[in-house]
Amino acid sequence: MANRNLYLNNTPVKEALDIYKKALKDLVKMQYEEIPVEKSLGRITKEAVYARCSSPLFNAAAMDGIAVITEKTKGASERTPLILEKNQDFIVVDTGDPVNYPYDAVIMAEDVIEIDERTVKILEAATAWQHVRPIGEDIVSGEMLLPSMHKIRPIDIGVLFSGGIINIMVVKQPKAAIFPTGTEIIEPTKTPEAGEIIESNSRMFEAMVTSYGGLADRFPPTPDDYNKIKTAVSEALDSYDMVIINAGSSAGTEDFTVHILRELGEVLVHGVAIKPGKPVILAVAKGKPVIGLPGYPVSAYIDFENFVKPVLALLTGETYGDSNVAEAVLSKRMISSLKHKEYVRVKVGQVGDKLVASPLARGAGAAMSLVRADGFCVIDQNCEGIEAGETVRVELYRSLQEIRHTVVCIGSHDLLLDLAADLMAFHYPGVYLSSTHIGSMGGLMALKRGEAHIVPVHLLDEASGKYNIPYIKRMFEEPMALIKGVKRIQGLIVQKGNPLNLKGIADLKQCRFVNRQRGAGTRVLFDYKLKQAGMDPSEITGYDREAATHMAVAALVAGNSADAAMGIFAAAKAMQLDFIEVGQEEYDFAVPVKYLELPEIQAFIEVLKSSELHTRLADAGGYQFEEAGDIYFIDEKFQA
Amino acid sequence: MANRNLYLNNTPVKEALDIYKKALKDLVKMQYEEIPVEKSLGRITKEAVYARCSSPLFNAAAMDGIAVITEKTKGASERTPLILEKNQDFIVVDTGDPVNYPYDAVIMAEDVIEIDERTVKILEAATAWQHVRPIGEDIVSGEMLLPSMHKIRPIDIGVLFSGGIINIMVVKQPKAAIFPTGTEIIEPTKTPEAGEIIESNSRMFEAMVTSYGGLADRFPPTPDDYNKIKTAVSEALDSYDMVIINAGSSAGTEDFTVHILRELGEVLVHGVAIKPGKPVILAVAKGKPVIGLPGYPVSAYIDFENFVKPVLALLTGETYGDSNVAEAVLSKRMISSLKHKEYVRVKVGQVGDKLVASPLARGAGAAMSLVRADGFCVIDQNCEGIEAGETVRVELYRSLQEIRHTVVCIGSHDLLLDLAADLMAFHYPGVYLSSTHIGSMGGLMALKRGEAHIVPVHLLDEASGKYNIPYIKRMFEEPMALIKGVKRIQGLIVQKGNPLNLKGIADLKQCRFVNRQRGAGTRVLFDYKLKQAGMDPSEITGYDREAATHMAVAALVAGNSADAAMGIFAAAKAMQLDFIEVGQEEYDFAVPVKYLELPEIQAFIEVLKSSELHTRLADAGGYQFEEAGDIYFIDEKFQA
Repeated sequence: MANRNLYLNNTPVKEALDIYKKALKDLVKMQYEEIPVEKSLGRITKEAVYARCSSPLFNAAAMDGIAVITEKTKGASERTPLILEKNQDFIVVDTGDPVNYPYDAVIMAEDVIEIDERTVKILEAATAWQHVRPIGEDIVSGEMLLPSMHKIRPIDIGVLFSGGIINIMVVKQPKAAIFPTGTEIIEPTKTPEAGEIIESNSRMFEAMVTSYGGLADRFPPTPDDYNKIKTAVSEALDSYDMVIINAGSSAGTEDFTVHILRELGEVLVHGVAIKPGKPVILAVAKGKPVIGLPGYPVSAYIDFENFVKPVLALLTGETYGDSNVAEAVLSKRMISSLKHKEYVRVKVGQVGDKLVASPLARGAGAAMSLVRADGFCVIDQNCEGIEAGETVRVELYRSLQEIRHTVVCIGSHDLLLDLAADLMAFHYPGVYLSSTHIGSMGGLMALKRGEAHIVPVHLLDEASGKYNIPYIKRMFEEPMALIKGVKRIQGLIVQKGNPLNLKGIADLKQCRFVNRQRGAGTRVLFDYKLKQAGMDPSEITGYDREAATHMAVAALVAGNSADAAMGIFAAAKAMQLDFIEVGQEEYDFAVPVKYLELPEIQAFIEVLKSSELHTRLADAGGYQFEEAGDIYFIDEKFQA
Repeated sequence: MANRNLYLNNTPVKEALDIYKKALKDLVKMQYEEIPVEKSLGRITKEAVYARCSSPLFNAAAMDGIAVITEKTKGASERTPLILEKNQDFIVVDTGDPVNYPYDAVIMAEDVIEIDERTVKILEAATAWQHVRPIGEDIVSGEMLLPSMHKIRPIDIGVLFSGGIINIMVVKQPKAAIFPTGTEIIEPTKTPEAGEIIESNSRMFEAMVTSYGGLADRFPPTPDDYNKIKTAVSEALDSYDMVIINAGSSAGTEDFTVHILRELGEVLVHGVAIKPGKPVILAVAKGKPVIGLPGYPVSAYIDFENFVKPVLALLTGETYGDSNVAEAVLSKRMISSLKHKEYVRVKVGQVGDKLVASPLARGAGAAMSLVRADGFCVIDQNCEGIEAGETVRVELYRSLQEIRHTVVCIGSHDLLLDLAADLMAFHYPGVYLSSTHIGSMGGLMALKRGEAHIVPVHLLDEASGKYNIPYIKRMFEEPMALIKGVKRIQGLIVQKGNPLNLKGIADLKQCRFVNRQRGAGTRVLFDYKLKQAGMDPSEITGYDREAATHMAVAALVAGNSADAAMGIFAAAKAMQLDFIEVGQEEYDFAVPVKYLELPEIQAFIEVLKSSELHTRLADAGGYQFEEAGDIYFIDEKFQA
């Protein structure tokens, strides 16, 4: 193919970072500035700060009462009270008032008997310096208040002022210029047309730079034009501390970044053994770091964390701390390659005593998997994969505390789960519902392995014609219950206006179908209906094409990438498609009896029963929810 | 005493908060506002956010290459290559380009052999939908992107834009008005005179409100004038969501706050069973929360955390997460009272496998103890105290990671420790030196109990006339080493110009002395010198008055609260006092051999040897540092 530079290196992550840091060592220097203390929250001190004055500045009364001369109180007792004269033997002091020579002690107001305006009686002698805060008790003039490279907290601001400091030298926040590039990208304010992509990465980078202590300027999108990009980057290098270019970092026909950077400076690394995130460029131009990040959002995010963040650290003086690492049991085998270090997004849940990590979608384009993830499981380059049940290290970005208060829900997907998660967040702050969608059967297997609290299921038992309970009875020996969910209509999701005039399963031979994944309740129902109609899967074009949720299959139909799919009414309605009813099914939650009393599960049951949820389900359409939240104990002997 | 309202209640903490929350329940409501997504980092969503469009919006090439029609590639193999014609059998696509009907698969550029401008050769058939990202793979239109009450992260901003969202409803940041009051307080820009106090609490509150997600307006200090304060607070209640008044929250002659708030609204709680922090006021006026906080900085901080933060949570929608709690062994007995819940600031260090908590100064005025602390140990109201060696729960505000990389140094104080801590922070980011000052002997006892890594000591053995090593030999059985520190001059710190004309120890009978605490090396030296001079402690006025550091005793002399103290030259110099040399001593570090190879200890030794430290010591004066960082193994048999 013409104009392609196919060659991308595969430098190991650590080596790439070492090369880059070495190149930046003498170029990248922290800058400093003096700012008012009241504006210094979260900033990093340049140097040690020493107190300019003591606190307290004088010997001060630590109580409301009277300041006395210890000598003159000697001998006072209940039997031999002493009378003291104002402004001669004592003065009245409030907390914080100075206690000056000859006064050397304070008697609390509670222990003083007032006789008249000028005289008081005391029943006990004072000991020297009682209830007096000595000068410098808190801060001694000249003492070090804060060390270098210290991140300023609210309490630090308090002591800086108390120590007489009003301005402070701090590390200047580095300024990063962010350039979104690409002819196909458009600003979010414009409605996208086919072939156009809403530019969102640069706004994510902007927020990342900000949260790591830098300042970010995001430039408007530049089309894939060699000279325009070169000029813009070159100009930015004169006034910014670093430049981020996105995307064009790979080796395609329109990937200019690497050529531009070779012209403007030196490219130290192009291509790293990391997945996702291989096509990254680490360069230096005009003495400043320039990093080219790939276009896929997950790749861009992971490369930012691995390569931009360490460069920001050199400029901000922040240490960012190590990641929050926990050990978890892996719920599903992960295969990787010796070609790269791989970052797999995982959901993490605590079930019983066990922390469980469940891998999410691994595609570089799956930004929502980052939103849904609780952390990363990192597979080293020298590792070919990890087996289910093995213990893995997870870099968490949710706190363990939150994870412990989360209902782990693994199984079949329904809109109900999103709505319930939302209502839980709103009505039970600090309690969460986390759901992973691997189909009814996959969920029950996960529950058997102790990796979930509840499993949303809609499994039709062909023999009895009953839903869910027969499967749970067969699969579990421990006491189980069923939390009733909803009845919902399943059917064929078809193009708006039903142009192929499909009437039911029998008509599917003439069209492009998209199926749900193996183990999904909807697929079980579809297979059952196929059998009833006397049809064979081989007669359906697209029977093997799989998508993981109702919304995903509906989207494929809406995008005219398929003519029909099996799914729920609500998904068809959400995508403004037509719907042909095939049958009604029961969507419930399998739960071990031992989890029923957990406060998190109780919150979930309350949400299922709430009229707020019912209203939202009625809006979506296709649901019956009279029984939602009812509990059936699967076997009589376990009933309460 | 006149005009005092001595009565302060002692409501238990939980009860006080429950009373207050109940009163605020129907008054305090979150407000909402719509803001652009790019400004939403760290804000809390009002409601669930649903995608307005799918991502990708179309079936898109996942690789650079050619889009083909699967049907037309059937049969291609190495033996039977197929020739494809441009714009008929294939089109060229870059990653992200649309793949529209009739095209239904992409072949990677690497697998395509170019023949000429219009034709290519392929050696393998394509499978349907290979290297195609289906429409909605990442985000399906109508799908829930974020739930309610979700704190927006950088990745969320990315998916919001990808999902077609450009504005978002978030919780409005509550506005707090902060009123510093008091006739004695001055702005930090003014140089304080005796009796005046630099106002610093309000700036700390301002930073706390900010870091908890609110907006703060700090008003200039108001003198203790009933009507002025009342008018200012009343006006603020019209435009702010809450008001904080500091101080005047107690029951002294000039503590107006409670009266003002009774007039403006209702005081629900005045006085809580918490230490420090008893004099707190929880009130409601004009339907808004008003909180009166005490003047001592530590009390104010603890009351803010216990009472202001929960009110802010009602307005911000933040959960703030639970505190970072760890279990540690207590190094020193703590006595408390059944009268209150007590917050004791602690240093926390990891020594071997053990996390150790060492209590710091407990005074309400000791703001520096908050700066130095790693967390709080909370003693419940129903507990009279905790014995040394017991396990306690510590609410940490430094990360465990940082604590694990900290050299725990317990013993005698010297300026050297502050300078070394500063240089470590600067040259070894992520490694820290934490020092607690309890004197040489106290330090050695802590080391014996396994609560420190190194102990700064300067203990004169009267029998041999040698420093340090005899003590270590006597006290330890395990292999020990001595890291050499400095030789330093000890002497009498006296008033500038030496007005009492003191010449040495013998002259101390005529003046007010201040001593160092029991177990301090300086006190051992002082006692030794007293004995040499044939004097008895009872002859010295102030022998029993103790302060914990060289700087603290120097400050007392500088404040004319004492005439003389024993200490080091550097402290006298820092406070611009006169100094009468008494002798030279050796200030070194005792360390178990097993800790010598820890990277943190190695960093400390490097710092001791550094010319930067030596320069700073020379500036301070009174030090010899030729041997600093040298290591002596205490017993020959342990020598390397």
